[in-house]
Amino acid sequence: MPGFLNLDGLALSTAQGKWKRTADALARDVLRPNAEAVDREGKFPKANMRALGEAGLLGLQIPTEQGGAGEGIVTAVLVTEALAKGCATTAMAYHMHQSSIPFLSAAATPEQVEQLLGPVVRGEWFGAFAMSEPGSGNKIWHMDSFAQRNGAGYVIDSFKSFCTSAGEADFYLVPVRSFAGAGPHDLSLFMIMGDDPNIKPIGVWDGMGLRGNSSRPIHFDGCHVPDIQRFGEEKEGFSYMMAYSLPIYLCGMAACYVGIALAAYEAAVAHVKARIHTDTNKSLAHLETVQRLVAEMRVAIDCVRFTTLRIAQQADNAVVLFNEFAQTGLLDEIIRDNPDDPFFIEVAALKPAACEMAIQVTNKALQVCGGAGYKRGHPVERGYRDGRAGSVMGPSDDTVKLVIGTQILGLSQPWT
Amino acid sequence: MPGFLNLDGLALSTAQGKWKRTADALARDVLRPNAEAVDREGKFPKANMRALGEAGLLGLQIPTEQGGAGEGIVTAVLVTEALAKGCATTAMAYHMHQSSIPFLSAAATPEQVEQLLGPVVRGEWFGAFAMSEPGSGNKIWHMDSFAQRNGAGYVIDSFKSFCTSAGEADFYLVPVRSFAGAGPHDLSLFMIMGDDPNIKPIGVWDGMGLRGNSSRPIHFDGCHVPDIQRFGEEKEGFSYMMAYSLPIYLCGMAACYVGIALAAYEAAVAHVKARIHTDTNKSLAHLETVQRLVAEMRVAIDCVRFTTLRIAQQADNAVVLFNEFAQTGLLDEIIRDNPDDPFFIEVAALKPAACEMAIQVTNKALQVCGGAGYKRGHPVERGYRDGRAGSVMGPSDDTVKLVIGTQILGLSQPWT
Repeated sequence: MPGFLNLDGLALSTAQGKWKRTADALARDVLRPNAEAVDREGKFPKANMRALGEAGLLGLQIPTEQGGAGEGIVTAVLVTEALAKGCATTAMAYHMHQSSIPFLSAAATPEQVEQLLGPVVRGEWFGAFAMSEPGSGNKIWHMDSFAQRNGAGYVIDSFKSFCTSAGEADFYLVPVRSFAGAGPHDLSLFMIMGDDPNIKPIGVWDGMGLRGNSSRPIHFDGCHVPDIQRFGEEKEGFSYMMAYSLPIYLCGMAACYVGIALAAYEAAVAHVKARIHTDTNKSLAHLETVQRLVAEMRVAIDCVRFTTLRIAQQADNAVVLFNEFAQTGLLDEIIRDNPDDPFFIEVAALKPAACEMAIQVTNKALQVCGGAGYKRGHPVERGYRDGRAGSVMGPSDDTVKLVIGTQILGLSQPWT
Repeated sequence: MPGFLNLDGLALSTAQGKWKRTADALARDVLRPNAEAVDREGKFPKANMRALGEAGLLGLQIPTEQGGAGEGIVTAVLVTEALAKGCATTAMAYHMHQSSIPFLSAAATPEQVEQLLGPVVRGEWFGAFAMSEPGSGNKIWHMDSFAQRNGAGYVIDSFKSFCTSAGEADFYLVPVRSFAGAGPHDLSLFMIMGDDPNIKPIGVWDGMGLRGNSSRPIHFDGCHVPDIQRFGEEKEGFSYMMAYSLPIYLCGMAACYVGIALAAYEAAVAHVKARIHTDTNKSLAHLETVQRLVAEMRVAIDCVRFTTLRIAQQADNAVVLFNEFAQTGLLDEIIRDNPDDPFFIEVAALKPAACEMAIQVTNKALQVCGGAGYKRGHPVERGYRDGRAGSVMGPSDDTVKLVIGTQILGLSQPWT
């Protein structure tokens, strides 16, 4: 909805505007036309991911020195939100790819940049983040599985309980304990190639929503990986993950659910304007209740959307600091010693804010659309199911609230 | 709550940080110690307003070329929020002063700057905004009263239904119709001095909350004002008010209610940490329900707080454009011809977002404090009453929602 003040434009850089328009066009021309089929068939949208690669979106966050577009979390948020308006399943798969990138870039050696980030920059590889383990519950940073030294490499035997794009990704970012005796937070992070024959996705993803994203358990069943596929030092994986993956993970998650809510809201607005009742010869839009619900959707979306953009900007500022700490070798110490930094609360707060907003907004969109919106395949019906995923996705909103609450009350720290 | 990332600082300019610290110190040392008495006695906090003047806060938004501090709406928001944490009554009186300033500065001639803004810059005068009329309901920009030409000046006879700081302000910003035959939106704006003997405040303000702010009806009973006290041209007052007063009014309003919510939240956190039950020998903070409610308060506040800061930044950007339009004589035409600009929706959305948040947060703060918080004089009890004001204050949240809803649905425009 452009206007003479064009304030979204004023607040964005030229490059951010360009990437947002690229994502808007992809969402409109490529993602949206397939979204109903992706949902109905529950098939992973591989062609969509290739289209994102061709448009340069897979290397969006890779620094220009490493050959990428050099964009930060704000741009990633704008792009993810735009894609989610077209197809939430694709946006979620893209988002999990995005969540692996800042960490990979920060830790990569020149050899790793050439061999392992090059294909990402060229749009050939997209990744998945295989994190949560059955034993770790909602403390998703707690790992039971570990890496075992084996000559010039490691053997990884790790069962991950949910992994978006499982069986579909070109690579997996896999955190495990550094060795058998290491603490659950002393992690190493490995890139495991998608064509490794010892990767075994389990079963079929058959969720209420986000039906094409193949979010299955996956077993890395004794995968041999050479040293070059370990990013960063042993035991420093935890700090790197907290510094680089957590902010993009939470900001991008919020962007997904803002996009889902926006799509439902816009479909609802279109519906109530077009639907004329012959008893009154007026559209649904003339009902005061509808006007009120439309405004409440808009207020709720704006509030989370602008918060997400501001927190993303702060996260981009924070990453500059993290990079400096990493270069002086202080990152591990600083992250582990400052778990109560308010930055992590402010970032964490985005998740329940966005996910609960998506539930409320898609619920109101469904209400104003009546039976038409409830019909299987209607964008609002799909949005209602897709929008329900976030609050239960790890760490669940309930867990995040207890993490935030106990930290504020001085009782514990987020990752203890 | 400082942390090593200090991201509030990163996102603010040095001057913004300085003004925020000034306001924090005033709130702590001057406002908070009197807040309970201001509430109980319902007496206008004149000494507080003088202290704000001495600290340089009254001329905060007046451009440096006019002798002021040259700060924008972001800084005004930070200061208002900080003051509201100390005393909501004082913050609301200050906020209504603030709402008059950008308009006065934008329209002022050099003579007006010297004679009428000089005392504001020096911290000697604070103003009130006497806008709403009994006939205008929630369309607070619709005026029935008008200015009558009288030699080298005007006679104003105008009854205003609610005016914060009525009978206390050093000057009033008073919009009325330009002349008897003008349309309800063809306004002129006058500065009427507080010592004019024809100003008659009516009755006593006796509200549930914000008890010291003297928010009474006021009758300008045939006030004679010289030409120099008219700011801007006749009939252009409406556009100037929409461009300059509306953004600071809505952003500052949100800041007041964020401050009220923050004060209640912080008092609640302090209470549940300190309150030990002897049956368990544990503090209330150990209850999972309390942890959850504390987190929900924090998430809700953060969301509105960061949205307010981002919208305020956008409003500051918009004011730069408005100034350019004003200089080329195009402001009136552009504002009246573009009532559906999304900027005005985004700014308007702040009001229900912030005011409803304040109700929810102060309600939860009261819940976790139990009987202690319910006791008359407890900061949470006061916050619960103060926090309820915003949603009914004109334009009420219900009106704002219908304005937003009908505009989105293409049925009407905000000020038609």
